[in-house]
Amino acid sequence: MILYTEKGAGMANTDHKIIDASAKGKKTLDSGHKAKKPAQAAEYSGSEPVPVRIAFLGGINEVGKNMTLYEYKGDMFLVDCGLAFPDQDMLGVDIVLPDFTFIERNIESIRGLIVTHGHEDHIGGIAYLLKLVSLPIYGTELTLGLIKGKLREHGLLNEADLRVVKPGSIIELGSFTAELIHVNHSIPDAVSLAIRCEVGVIIHTGDFKIDSTPIDGGMIDLAAFARISAEGVLCMLSDSTNAERPGYTVTESRVGDAFDSIFRKVEGKRLIVATFASNIHRVQQIMDVAHSLSKKVALSGRSLENVVSIGAELGYLKIPEGLMIELSEVNDYPQSELVIITTGSQGEPLSALSRMSMSEHRNIEVGPGDCVVISATPIPGNEKTVSKVINELMKLGAEVVYEKMYDVHVSGHACQEELKMMLGIVKPKYFIPVHGEQKHLRKHALLAQSMGIPDENVVIVDNGYVAEITSQNIRIGGKVPAGRVFVDGYGIGDVGSAVLKDRKRLSQDGLLVVSMTVDRKRMKILAGPEIDSRGFVYVKEAEKLMEDAKALSQDIISASLKNGSADWATVKPRLRDEMSRLLYERTKRSPMIIPVILEYGKLLNP
Amino acid sequence: MILYTEKGAGMANTDHKIIDASAKGKKTLDSGHKAKKPAQAAEYSGSEPVPVRIAFLGGINEVGKNMTLYEYKGDMFLVDCGLAFPDQDMLGVDIVLPDFTFIERNIESIRGLIVTHGHEDHIGGIAYLLKLVSLPIYGTELTLGLIKGKLREHGLLNEADLRVVKPGSIIELGSFTAELIHVNHSIPDAVSLAIRCEVGVIIHTGDFKIDSTPIDGGMIDLAAFARISAEGVLCMLSDSTNAERPGYTVTESRVGDAFDSIFRKVEGKRLIVATFASNIHRVQQIMDVAHSLSKKVALSGRSLENVVSIGAELGYLKIPEGLMIELSEVNDYPQSELVIITTGSQGEPLSALSRMSMSEHRNIEVGPGDCVVISATPIPGNEKTVSKVINELMKLGAEVVYEKMYDVHVSGHACQEELKMMLGIVKPKYFIPVHGEQKHLRKHALLAQSMGIPDENVVIVDNGYVAEITSQNIRIGGKVPAGRVFVDGYGIGDVGSAVLKDRKRLSQDGLLVVSMTVDRKRMKILAGPEIDSRGFVYVKEAEKLMEDAKALSQDIISASLKNGSADWATVKPRLRDEMSRLLYERTKRSPMIIPVILEYGKLLNP
Repeated sequence: MILYTEKGAGMANTDHKIIDASAKGKKTLDSGHKAKKPAQAAEYSGSEPVPVRIAFLGGINEVGKNMTLYEYKGDMFLVDCGLAFPDQDMLGVDIVLPDFTFIERNIESIRGLIVTHGHEDHIGGIAYLLKLVSLPIYGTELTLGLIKGKLREHGLLNEADLRVVKPGSIIELGSFTAELIHVNHSIPDAVSLAIRCEVGVIIHTGDFKIDSTPIDGGMIDLAAFARISAEGVLCMLSDSTNAERPGYTVTESRVGDAFDSIFRKVEGKRLIVATFASNIHRVQQIMDVAHSLSKKVALSGRSLENVVSIGAELGYLKIPEGLMIELSEVNDYPQSELVIITTGSQGEPLSALSRMSMSEHRNIEVGPGDCVVISATPIPGNEKTVSKVINELMKLGAEVVYEKMYDVHVSGHACQEELKMMLGIVKPKYFIPVHGEQKHLRKHALLAQSMGIPDENVVIVDNGYVAEITSQNIRIGGKVPAGRVFVDGYGIGDVGSAVLKDRKRLSQDGLLVVSMTVDRKRMKILAGPEIDSRGFVYVKEAEKLMEDAKALSQDIISASLKNGSADWATVKPRLRDEMSRLLYERTKRSPMIIPVILEYGKLLNP
Repeated sequence: MILYTEKGAGMANTDHKIIDASAKGKKTLDSGHKAKKPAQAAEYSGSEPVPVRIAFLGGINEVGKNMTLYEYKGDMFLVDCGLAFPDQDMLGVDIVLPDFTFIERNIESIRGLIVTHGHEDHIGGIAYLLKLVSLPIYGTELTLGLIKGKLREHGLLNEADLRVVKPGSIIELGSFTAELIHVNHSIPDAVSLAIRCEVGVIIHTGDFKIDSTPIDGGMIDLAAFARISAEGVLCMLSDSTNAERPGYTVTESRVGDAFDSIFRKVEGKRLIVATFASNIHRVQQIMDVAHSLSKKVALSGRSLENVVSIGAELGYLKIPEGLMIELSEVNDYPQSELVIITTGSQGEPLSALSRMSMSEHRNIEVGPGDCVVISATPIPGNEKTVSKVINELMKLGAEVVYEKMYDVHVSGHACQEELKMMLGIVKPKYFIPVHGEQKHLRKHALLAQSMGIPDENVVIVDNGYVAEITSQNIRIGGKVPAGRVFVDGYGIGDVGSAVLKDRKRLSQDGLLVVSMTVDRKRMKILAGPEIDSRGFVYVKEAEKLMEDAKALSQDIISASLKNGSADWATVKPRLRDEMSRLLYERTKRSPMIIPVILEYGKLLNP
């Protein structure tokens, strides 16, 4: 395989050789989407064939913020616009977005955004993108239903140009067409794309698995992949999430059987089932089993309520009449008749399930009369929080069914044999594994080689790289901006590495503020020094240390004033250094030192 | 089973009904360890039989800081004194210790500390305990060798009373004896204890597994357990770490076979093998395979160098002559002849392997000529950091063998069938699962019941509880202090919940210092207000916000001064509240607000 990667962990991903700096400034789309030839098309005016280009804006070497841009002869379109959740070292960051710089620059050439399915890592960035540019958004009915909900929250629904398309239909995007192919996943209405231009066909799988007995919507349309394969497929980009897992993903139907057996086994107990809100088929199965056993169902968690309401409205979820009750009514029913579906399967600290485990839920008090089923697997990084919730629920006396016990969860992504099957059906000339960390991409590349794709035709890329493909070869043709953009509160992109570095330091050892007022005319200290600390030591037990810190700062400033110097640019670093040394010697901690020197006479409004 | 637990997550574990408040003040042990009857013995002067008591000072509902205290008729002794590593919410905390309060109070009654094996979660607290009290420490040769190393670092080796005991021997501890039984684990020289007093025999397994073909030291002494079982065992405390895992733990020997096959397969490449420093048998196997293939071995990582040197000195590690080279020499040898054993198998950010993955290691530059073998499984909570190291090594072009690929690691703890075997051999009347989170304890309790121990004889306890056992019953007889003590730098216990809460807040949104000087006589602002922020926003892009913050604080203080009020105890909270509101409205962030109001005339040295 051919390996292109950035060293280090992504944050440095801000310096780029930009392959297309045209179309700067103008950020809205021409009505009618007239194709203008951007500058770079000229590069290919010679005898060389014009390649189709794929710019990876996110989703490579990471799990999340999937976004891919296709370009041919000046026409561009996007596939997906997801968010990522912050790593633990991104302190205070709420969500992570792809860098939209390249999209803003080229918006005039972009014919639209196609969304493969309604998960956050594929749709979560759309609201933020639409604050910068406008463009038509294509997706299946449920996918657009979920996007609508988000746009409404952001007050962007009215100006959004949402276009519902059905699996099997073809979208025209300038020099491209994109055919939607029905696939199985852990949310209904997911699609793969067959992207066609003069160079050839590219299969963009999006997230998928092969499920012969999904709950609704039918098995993945393998016939369509086979038909397109017969045309000859130039390249495939395929989902690597489960590339490390051998075998096949178990069918979603099996989970229903597991629910049925558990619900019967714990008869007399109240059932609390935690799952991903977006897994509508899972919710359907819980409801069906509850209904068959004459139980009532209540929902806990806002995202779950939203998805259930959208899913039911659009017909993806069939709710038996009389099944649902309000959460506030649960205490009016005997425990044995109740099933509560809840969010929080990842142990998220503020989720409904987490609040139940801490006895802080408004309506649900968990005890020995409860059986909690966690119908999900911890996402890597969430193992500890999920364990904590399980342990706390058990301490309350509840029975807890979790992880692989009793098949209460199946993955939404293809395992190795399914990935090989997809490779074997599609038979692409070139192969680019996507959606995954390096270890997943590598494993998927090896699977492709085991299926007969030549070593030199398998390419591992990185975010920011642009693959150029002709009928004769594949190569990396440049780079585009594709770093991480942090969202913290209303701030987008203003939390950079300096702010994060400060937060990291503050989180480890706290801070110490040294403040005083200096009379510059008389060169003496007028007030202070005063020492304030937070997150450093328990101050009441450290009075001596605080006194010594005060004396030290007094000495440093007085000495400086005596020498007739009040150049704070040199005095402040000295104060910081000597104070740090004192505190480290005494505590082996390195709090942040913040010297504040106020000058008498410098009033805001004299 | 009978379930005793504290609600919530441990930190609240500070309020206790103390069962024994005698022996206060005196903190050193009488020479000769004369048995004095502490106060509580009197409680049992009636017709009731005197129970043996077990106080759980750590290791229950957690992984780490194992520590148990046994008491009978005024004689006490301790088993293990471990540390725990901090959870992610314990910001800036280096390590977590058990609460030693109860030990300090009762030191006159404590006849000694027996250590079951040399892992941090069993020995890591000893140096801190010896700063408070002195007492004899019993353990096998390697265990004490490792403890010696730690005590030397803390400058405590000279006054320590270390007593080497062999498996099979019996230690006398006042009214108790303790027989050491050889067991298998992921470190050599581990033992279980058969604890005898007039009430009966208690088996304290410590960490163990059953390995018929360990590398050295022989199989676990099941015959000894069987012999003691024949006496009739009153109670067993057993290791629950792997209680969720079905089947048997694979033998350590299998790992050697895996190394042999990998080392041969990647011939021509340099091998870098990461493992736990303390796993001497693992290190032995890597060395043996390297030697058999005429390779040279270098070590990277200080803890590994320490353990190898202690292990070799005491004869637990047999290093073939001419095998070892210095790390600084590795570049003098062809890659194909090199095996580097390194620390960092958990992806610890400052470890040798982590530095290699970031191309920051002084001697080792990883590239396509390397095969890295991670001979360990991520400890829960470390999955992400381990993945990161694997991904970065792969990006450098290295081949990486990890987790369950090729049997390159086996666990040190008994799985379900081994736990059942131990229960079946020992046949205890009462059973207390220990060493594990609630989910592990529960599963282990169910295994015990499946082996025929009656429901009411299986007791799940919590840290701080005291179990009282007579030949007729088992019950909880009170509580002792057993919270978490945080160590941060030199500070032990001074990082409490207030400091952690501040660090948490600072880590999320940073801080804002509002400082000014007020002339109280003339009731006016003399200097400032000045605004400083850290970890909040990128200040250069937030000038307007900073100006508004300045104006707001000016307004609040001026208004207050105009009213003739300079009661900072009411003005400061108002300033904090209004500033918070402004900042949240504008940024949706909640930085910590630190108001500093200096008063003119209040000089330190007027």
